[in-house]
Amino acid sequence: MLNFTFKNRTEILFGEGQIQEVASRLPENARVLFLYGGGSIKKNGIFDDVSAVLQSATVTEFAGVEPNPEYETLMQAVQVSRDNQVNFILAVGGGSVIDGAKFIAAAVNFDGNPWDILVSGAEFSETLPIGAVLTLPATGSESNGNSVVNRRETAQKRAFGSDSVQPMFAVLDPTYTFSLPPRQVSNGVIDAFVHVIEQYLTYPVNAPLQDRFAEGILHTLLTEGPKALSTPQDYDVRANVMWSATMALNGLIGKGVPQDWATHMIGHELTALYNLDHAQTLAIVLPSLMFVQREQKKTKILQLGERVFGITGEDEGRCLDLTIKAVQDFFEAMQVQTRLADYQIEKRSIDDIVANLEKNGMTALGEHGDIDLAKARQILNLAA
Amino acid sequence: MLNFTFKNRTEILFGEGQIQEVASRLPENARVLFLYGGGSIKKNGIFDDVSAVLQSATVTEFAGVEPNPEYETLMQAVQVSRDNQVNFILAVGGGSVIDGAKFIAAAVNFDGNPWDILVSGAEFSETLPIGAVLTLPATGSESNGNSVVNRRETAQKRAFGSDSVQPMFAVLDPTYTFSLPPRQVSNGVIDAFVHVIEQYLTYPVNAPLQDRFAEGILHTLLTEGPKALSTPQDYDVRANVMWSATMALNGLIGKGVPQDWATHMIGHELTALYNLDHAQTLAIVLPSLMFVQREQKKTKILQLGERVFGITGEDEGRCLDLTIKAVQDFFEAMQVQTRLADYQIEKRSIDDIVANLEKNGMTALGEHGDIDLAKARQILNLAA
Repeated sequence: MLNFTFKNRTEILFGEGQIQEVASRLPENARVLFLYGGGSIKKNGIFDDVSAVLQSATVTEFAGVEPNPEYETLMQAVQVSRDNQVNFILAVGGGSVIDGAKFIAAAVNFDGNPWDILVSGAEFSETLPIGAVLTLPATGSESNGNSVVNRRETAQKRAFGSDSVQPMFAVLDPTYTFSLPPRQVSNGVIDAFVHVIEQYLTYPVNAPLQDRFAEGILHTLLTEGPKALSTPQDYDVRANVMWSATMALNGLIGKGVPQDWATHMIGHELTALYNLDHAQTLAIVLPSLMFVQREQKKTKILQLGERVFGITGEDEGRCLDLTIKAVQDFFEAMQVQTRLADYQIEKRSIDDIVANLEKNGMTALGEHGDIDLAKARQILNLAA
Repeated sequence: MLNFTFKNRTEILFGEGQIQEVASRLPENARVLFLYGGGSIKKNGIFDDVSAVLQSATVTEFAGVEPNPEYETLMQAVQVSRDNQVNFILAVGGGSVIDGAKFIAAAVNFDGNPWDILVSGAEFSETLPIGAVLTLPATGSESNGNSVVNRRETAQKRAFGSDSVQPMFAVLDPTYTFSLPPRQVSNGVIDAFVHVIEQYLTYPVNAPLQDRFAEGILHTLLTEGPKALSTPQDYDVRANVMWSATMALNGLIGKGVPQDWATHMIGHELTALYNLDHAQTLAIVLPSLMFVQREQKKTKILQLGERVFGITGEDEGRCLDLTIKAVQDFFEAMQVQTRLADYQIEKRSIDDIVANLEKNGMTALGEHGDIDLAKARQILNLAA
């Protein structure tokens, strides 16, 4: 096992009705930025629930944070926060809204150009505290300090992270996910699944508990994910998906083990260039990456096959193939397609994707740092 | 799944050499109570490591916290802390030392008789912050707010708990466990194993992820526990046991599911009356409790058998028996005996144990509250 430090400061408020706990967790004289996305929360009752618990606070609404939150939009929210002397951000939505809140929290009191936080790791302080009300289980953003921001203008999708922007609390009410469109449910399950894979499918370091935890989340997503599509009003199914997605990326399962994240880095370029959903990019890249890295990841792919998919046998090559196919089949069963062609991205576009990887310095990806531009091209060709 | 709130404030510092991180985590002008047990840390180098990182602090040593920490001893430490205006407690040891630190932290600024904290849930405030350096993986005390204190004078073993006495940080260095006597290694593995069982072996509430996590810890303890006895200098084995014991009782796996804890409550009386090791009491009580509660716990015992011990078959009764026996066999394989007679406790002593349960109000134990004094007697008779 590798050395690690671990602490998670987010208080999880899990279950139906937990929104009631929010009022007691706001700062005194709260001046809240109520941040949300496209307005679906006005149709499903969440907006009203949140408004009710914010009654004693001064509230500034900011709507319109996009999936893959846009830098320009977030900078407008930064200005609104400054104008209204906001002292707390309540992010109501999925990973994009919460990621956006983190950037706003870091940028509000930042001297200089906030873009530097994303591109050159500029240091920031005096961040605003954040609370999250999760409506889309997927990214784990509600319980970690990571944020990804998109800038369409320059076709760049960049990440930053800090404990200081991790939410203080997160409301996880499974009923808040009942009205999600199937596409978002599918995306969420796949996103969480790949988060686990990025922290699990590397090379063994004799960390059996981390392996079992990762396999436990994968198992749960495999079983509950399809049910979330077929029986969308099943509270327990939604609860199990929600808790799995949080546990997939709250930092725990990746402690003491090597991590990969190449699928995410390559996927980010697909979103930046072609505006694909984040989970769609993962579903495209992961199976091909597993195939190209099958030798480096052999022990763990075989373990994944045996323990999670029940694939056993003496022919290692066949077990590897079957396991990779099982992952791809799961994505397709969750109604997310796994080839570039499925999204009308032609083979000749691969040059642009590789060029973007190079521009963003993504030239030595993966747990061994051995996914260079040539290998990335190989992965993308295989996914064509 | 049941509703829950979850937050864990302890920063885990895991791995060889992490003691170095302690200095930067002490308060300014630190006046530290350096609390430890019987002095084994003076033989294995841990005392020197700790002293080195405390160089810039004002340090008051307090040695002699017993296994099952004694109220009278801890009250002496409270006086020493007051006399020396201590503002931080560094607990170096196993669960007993850390549990003791929590009581001291709560009692130092308590107006009134601190015994009330243990027997009548008296409220306390202005607790001292605690750091832990773990030398015995077992109780999970390093990463939770629970404490159990013994009072031999009145044959009482009582618990209290509060987030405010949970350690701020915990150093988990597997090399610090290399010199543990085999009996303590065994006790620790069994203690952690039973902590998981208390939060898992109840009734199903459709919480598959919690089940998988619990089974993952049990698997790891079953595999690594015996290796910790046979190859005591194996770093990874010790690391895996250590991380498992922390995860067994840091609050996570019990969230959203019913919990039992009857084995612990009955076991506490065995320690209070006969001074048995805590783990010995668990090894005595659990198999018999499983047998007596086999109908109430049937679904989960069968799941434990199948997933953790590989016990399957059409005859449910036989699977139940084999699973209970597998648990008992594991305890015996870890060299901890499982019958009252093994510890020279005669059958007629059961009256005293039951009387003590009654005195302490332990008359409706377990996840259904259905373990009354008659059932407790039945369990103890079976364990005779």
